[in-house]
Amino acid sequence: MRAAVHAATLAELVDRGYAALSVENVAQRAGVHKTTVYRRWKDRESLLTDALAEHMAMDIPVPDTGAIETDLAALARSIVQTFTSPTGQAILAAMFTGAAHLPEIAAARRQVFDDRLARAEPVVTRAIQRGELPGDTDPAELLKTLAAPIYLRLLITADPVDETTADQAVLVALTAARGGALRTDHGARGQGRKGPVIS
Amino acid sequence: MRAAVHAATLAELVDRGYAALSVENVAQRAGVHKTTVYRRWKDRESLLTDALAEHMAMDIPVPDTGAIETDLAALARSIVQTFTSPTGQAILAAMFTGAAHLPEIAAARRQVFDDRLARAEPVVTRAIQRGELPGDTDPAELLKTLAAPIYLRLLITADPVDETTADQAVLVALTAARGGALRTDHGARGQGRKGPVIS
Repeated sequence: MRAAVHAATLAELVDRGYAALSVENVAQRAGVHKTTVYRRWKDRESLLTDALAEHMAMDIPVPDTGAIETDLAALARSIVQTFTSPTGQAILAAMFTGAAHLPEIAAARRQVFDDRLARAEPVVTRAIQRGELPGDTDPAELLKTLAAPIYLRLLITADPVDETTADQAVLVALTAARGGALRTDHGARGQGRKGPVIS
Repeated sequence: MRAAVHAATLAELVDRGYAALSVENVAQRAGVHKTTVYRRWKDRESLLTDALAEHMAMDIPVPDTGAIETDLAALARSIVQTFTSPTGQAILAAMFTGAAHLPEIAAARRQVFDDRLARAEPVVTRAIQRGELPGDTDPAELLKTLAAPIYLRLLITADPVDETTADQAVLVALTAARGGALRTDHGARGQGRKGPVIS
């Protein structure tokens, strides 16, 4: 039932957007009674947050191609694919416009990003072990450098986001890492306390 | 009168946030009658968009220190300062959460970013002329690489944003540029058509 309700939530989001999202519509689409949905999720906000977290967690397999160039290209292209599909565009719109004012959604944005980052870190540590990157490369900083230009385009500039965007992000991140700009002594301070953030 | 109303709009945003923003409150704070405000701005959305555009345009002087390292550090630090001040935090919250669902605001985000980018490009072209960067460095791509990690932290990760963040962004952007990762043949494709964007 949970999977069906999640799928129905995302489908409603794609077809109608966050403003029109309702527990009633989701229940109908999932073919269950709305009281069944309410038993598990108290409102449309928790339905949305839960469906998004589930979807984003499943979405990206962590590549292990044996070379950092192809691993990072796979990661960057999967970010691009995630957010340029119809479902991804609907999720992005919900997370950053329609439902952006909900504190749960701000927390979900951070959570999804942190989870993905943590799961992808082995890509960098394996590359360090293979001698493809300097030994003191900061995995989290490298992965944030990879993701940052893609999110900038998605969220602010409206430049096209495609495979070329992904490959360019790989080139920048690898060049910076190999040039010693992404060492742990720089990046470590980002791991400490959480600073003020919009919410 | 225009400046007073803009200032009152931003002050209301800082004190009460976008949800509570009203033409009445702004008029009262600016010491003018609300019909005077309505004569110029049709609603609180146009008031907000106009005040934000004005504030963001004035905010950042373009540095010319004679060296790319210090010019980029000044630019990056000014982005950090802009968005970590009380006014900046209120603007960020309005643009990316409270008022993020307004199409005018999505357009304003792009507009403000594009304007700042265009005004800062001479920083890069002067550095190329001084021989500090490869001759085919793409100014817009370099400046986006500089800004991207700062925005990622502000909008998603909630990591601290401070002068170290700014200096680290400079190091990454310069290392990438000098390593040949920000050449015009890569960057040019970003200048063409505008792709789909959340709105």
